[in-house]
Amino acid sequence: MPADRGRAAGPPTISEVAAEAGVGRATAARTLGGYGYVSPELRERVLAAAEKLGYRTNALARSMSTGVSHTLGVIVADIGNPFFAGVVRGISDTSRARGFDTIVLSTYEDLDEEVAATNVLIDKRVDGVIIASAAVDRTEVAHIKAAMDRGIPVVLVDRAVASLDLDAVVIDNRDAAREAVEVLITAGHRRIGFVWGPPVAQAPATRRGLLTAASRNLWTDGERLRGYLDALDDARIPFDPDLVMVGRKTEERATEEVARMLALPDRITAVFCTETDAVTGALRALRTAGLSCPRDVALIGFDDSSWAAVMEPPLTMIEQPVHQLGAKAAEVLLDTIAGTEPRREMHTLSSRLILRSSVAPPPAGS
Amino acid sequence: MPADRGRAAGPPTISEVAAEAGVGRATAARTLGGYGYVSPELRERVLAAAEKLGYRTNALARSMSTGVSHTLGVIVADIGNPFFAGVVRGISDTSRARGFDTIVLSTYEDLDEEVAATNVLIDKRVDGVIIASAAVDRTEVAHIKAAMDRGIPVVLVDRAVASLDLDAVVIDNRDAAREAVEVLITAGHRRIGFVWGPPVAQAPATRRGLLTAASRNLWTDGERLRGYLDALDDARIPFDPDLVMVGRKTEERATEEVARMLALPDRITAVFCTETDAVTGALRALRTAGLSCPRDVALIGFDDSSWAAVMEPPLTMIEQPVHQLGAKAAEVLLDTIAGTEPRREMHTLSSRLILRSSVAPPPAGS
Repeated sequence: MPADRGRAAGPPTISEVAAEAGVGRATAARTLGGYGYVSPELRERVLAAAEKLGYRTNALARSMSTGVSHTLGVIVADIGNPFFAGVVRGISDTSRARGFDTIVLSTYEDLDEEVAATNVLIDKRVDGVIIASAAVDRTEVAHIKAAMDRGIPVVLVDRAVASLDLDAVVIDNRDAAREAVEVLITAGHRRIGFVWGPPVAQAPATRRGLLTAASRNLWTDGERLRGYLDALDDARIPFDPDLVMVGRKTEERATEEVARMLALPDRITAVFCTETDAVTGALRALRTAGLSCPRDVALIGFDDSSWAAVMEPPLTMIEQPVHQLGAKAAEVLLDTIAGTEPRREMHTLSSRLILRSSVAPPPAGS
Repeated sequence: MPADRGRAAGPPTISEVAAEAGVGRATAARTLGGYGYVSPELRERVLAAAEKLGYRTNALARSMSTGVSHTLGVIVADIGNPFFAGVVRGISDTSRARGFDTIVLSTYEDLDEEVAATNVLIDKRVDGVIIASAAVDRTEVAHIKAAMDRGIPVVLVDRAVASLDLDAVVIDNRDAAREAVEVLITAGHRRIGFVWGPPVAQAPATRRGLLTAASRNLWTDGERLRGYLDALDDARIPFDPDLVMVGRKTEERATEEVARMLALPDRITAVFCTETDAVTGALRALRTAGLSCPRDVALIGFDDSSWAAVMEPPLTMIEQPVHQLGAKAAEVLLDTIAGTEPRREMHTLSSRLILRSSVAPPPAGS
């Protein structure tokens, strides 16, 4: 290591590397952080400058060069969702074991809040960011790119964002949904409600319209819808738009929509729920209609919890590896902070269907 | 406002006020922040210096004097507990409406983590801190005093800490517990389990021993235990140490302890649960014992949720004003940041008992 570089004491900063290379700071940050596009020629110049100045892309150097130390920032869509609380615990446990503290901001699914939260983390000089973003396309990711341009590595968790070439740690949403709906079909169900679908005002009448709406929705929700359609396709069950909830994604709305599906002439005999609040909404609708689960209506949902296990009946639920999701995201981020080249890939963890007692065959005559 | 004070541009800092007054920075911070003890003489000198230099204790001046802007730090015991998630939402909504962002750290009930979290918030230069502290006595609050000594106002939420003379926003835990247990007694119950009590290894044999153990436990837990004992006293039901769970506060342990109480020769016919995990633990024990609620065992618990409402039977639960708790804590803190003198009082909000169907008279012959 060059002990005397003829410059001010302390390790070189990204700005100094940039100046030495004759490039902008963002270009130097992208090169040294290992993300985003940098032309081979500029990349070469930055790396040569970094080597000459003795710039080391490890946690210590990074911390000193940016004046920060050992804090990860986490942005989640809703800390009130036990799923995200579990992910945050996984991030926290893993980062703590490697000497990092974790600060959390919750955006409550509001993109403006997400932009503000990202700015707070940049301002607070965190070493890296893990984000479950509400962004669905390239017009909504400028804030994430801004963090990256400042040399702050970013890892996505739970939700991939198509236009961002970043490491993303997710679960097998499509397979999980498909397996759950297959269990319902195997039990004999053909009228299976899907709660919830894309937040559009009107249910698209066609399957194609539905998939287009889903592609403008959160990645996780779209994947779960695709898994539902996969299972119907495999069983040659025609898609019926009446059985897909659209609109605002709230427990109240899930209650209304399941009530509507229960009032159809050819009513649902099963329901597949993609969120905890969709499950409680569906159960509320069943109770109000005087129907019982699983005798009248079978149910499977995301996410498993202690409550689901002690319900009467105990609910068949999909368990996401929440702690592992957070732990893996923290690992990938901390490795990047420590100087490992990001792999920029989708890390897909497996969920598990916990079979309990909320699935039975449809009532006779239905 | 003195436009030219013959010093560097920008409003005066606390350090400058301290120097002018000839006192330490902590003394100036305590005086200007309106917390902690400062002798009348020193207080006079600090206020005179502040006036001379034009020091203004409002958000803007405070922000500029400390180099920070518009961020509140929140430290909660466990963000995975829906109670705290709701409190954080209340804090976030209120602070956002007043132009402040909120960053959250979760300590998972570990005091060392709480100390580290406090240091992170000091380091990140937040304008104020709201904390649900795991500290139970004066030997455990040095980190909170350290934040205050740096001029960062602190408000307690959910949990009062006896040795800290601060604003605390809490609910009427003792009254809430008393009311719930009275409902059970009115229904005819006399063998009422209490889940959970202090985390001591052995159940204290005497009521006095139990209260001593409770006084070394979290304030909320102690208050709920006192409410339980109040209701027994009013009904002249003797205290039975066998009916109080002690030990680690986990769902698994609650299951074991309720199973034990159900196996007593004179078994419980009702259970009062002080936490969500205690409720699910108790329900698990009932299921395993082949008993049903409310036919065999009545149940009331903290905290109400969507799940509790859709259970079979729907559970009678205590609803805490979680959003309001957070909103009030944020209000008090933001007022202090804006220069209002802290009231240093206990702000007690009212909970509500939601009557549903988990309480019935004890089985005949019990």
